[in-house]
Amino acid sequence: MTSPDPVPGYTHDDPGLAPSPVSAADLKLLKASVLFGPADQQALRTAGEVLSGQIEQVLDVWYGFVGSHPHLLAYFSTPDGTPIDDYLARVRARFGHWIIDTCTRPYDERWLAYQHEIALRHTDVKKNLTDAADSVPLIPLRHIIAFVYPITATIRPFLAAGGHDDEQVDAMFQAWFKAVTLQVALWSQPYAGRAW
Amino acid sequence: MTSPDPVPGYTHDDPGLAPSPVSAADLKLLKASVLFGPADQQALRTAGEVLSGQIEQVLDVWYGFVGSHPHLLAYFSTPDGTPIDDYLARVRARFGHWIIDTCTRPYDERWLAYQHEIALRHTDVKKNLTDAADSVPLIPLRHIIAFVYPITATIRPFLAAGGHDDEQVDAMFQAWFKAVTLQVALWSQPYAGRAW
Ligand code: HEM
Ligand code: HEM
Repeated sequence: MTSPDPVPGYTHDDPGLAPSPVSAADLKLLKASVLFGPADQQALRTAGEVLSGQIEQVLDVWYGFVGSHPHLLAYFSTPDGTPIDDYLARVRARFGHWIIDTCTRPYDERWLAYQHEIALRHTDVKKNLTDAADSVPLIPLRHIIAFVYPITATIRPFLAAGGHDDEQVDAMFQAWFKAVTLQVALWSQPYAGRAW
Repeated sequence: MTSPDPVPGYTHDDPGLAPSPVSAADLKLLKASVLFGPADQQALRTAGEVLSGQIEQVLDVWYGFVGSHPHLLAYFSTPDGTPIDDYLARVRARFGHWIIDTCTRPYDERWLAYQHEIALRHTDVKKNLTDAADSVPLIPLRHIIAFVYPITATIRPFLAAGGHDDEQVDAMFQAWFKAVTLQVALWSQPYAGRAW
């Protein structure tokens, strides 16, 4: 995928990206556990079209949520608690890309590899490295799991803004919920080690 | 709480229950992250009334889901893959109790302590002990996180069966979604250790 406006630190298509320790077989079972099937992939394609014109507004909501909770903003801040604007801005651009990727990418080995990269960027293995940020060393797993709720619930009005009927909006919402849950399950891998 | 029909292995009110390593302050922040407030507690009370007459039907759906997926049924089976009926039945009774507890218990220190006990019962620290089951040693974290989706999505028709209007059903659903997400975040504690 080429982009007219490359996003710093976004390495989804970097040929040097390390493969994920998660196998295609593991992914298949996780998809079964969240009931993710071809209809969800289709619904996400539509969601991608609906969301593509609203990315900044979605990010405003999510960044507003983080910014208004000191226990979350801390992870975008220096160890003494000063928010790092450049870090916030650079991650925001990648977060916007992730919304579209979640809706449009095939969930294949490359996608798995970048999922693992995103996971590591939340842990002490890789947090801060991409943006040379002087921030705290890791994001505790509990907060990542808890975020399934806000990242899912807040998307609904944006999905509904495309003029689709209730049934279609609900299909997009369910697919989004499944996709977020699936990714958080993947991202827990470096946190849980052998018990993953 | 006294019950005419005690559930084997259910130790929520056991005075010997060990305290949770999760503090009340941690819980407060996690509740903020999932946007859990007094209105949700209220909606869960109503959900508890609606669900109380449908527990067996809810469990039929969940056990049907587990039973139809060999990669999930494996955790209720012997290491060579034979499902253990007695184990399935005993856990089912506690699972039913958990539905009501999620809706009606105050989320206090005792509740936190039993959350930790439930967490440990999914790990190699305590799985199988309560029921003297000859099953596999632990449930991998990824499956527990993935279950947020089915455990949340499948509850909706049961919440809608109580004759409440759409807005009330949605309030109950959102509260349930938050409560399940919150508990899975808590249950990840023994899996993630210091990175929790
Ligand atoms: C459902 C849960 C979450 C989702 C979907 C999510 C999504 C993302 C995405 C897409 C990125 C950019 C990945 C890239 O570099 O391409 C990212 C990075 C980041 N996220 Fe999360 N995130 C979640 C939970 C959290 C939580 C709870 C926090 C804590 C406030 C957080 C803080 C951060 C930070 C600080 C970075 C930058 C990491 C770095 O240094 O590279 N995230 N997240
Ligand atoms: C949202 C995720 C989940 C929820 C809400 C949940 C809920 C529960 C509850 C309430 C209990 C009984 C706790 C007690 O002893 O009082 C339990 C035990 C158990 N669950 Fe889960 N569970 C989840 C994920 C899973 C998954 C993915 C599996 C794998 C199939 C699983 C398999 C088991 C087993 C085998 C036990 C018995 C553990 C023991 O030996 O004591 N659970 N679960």
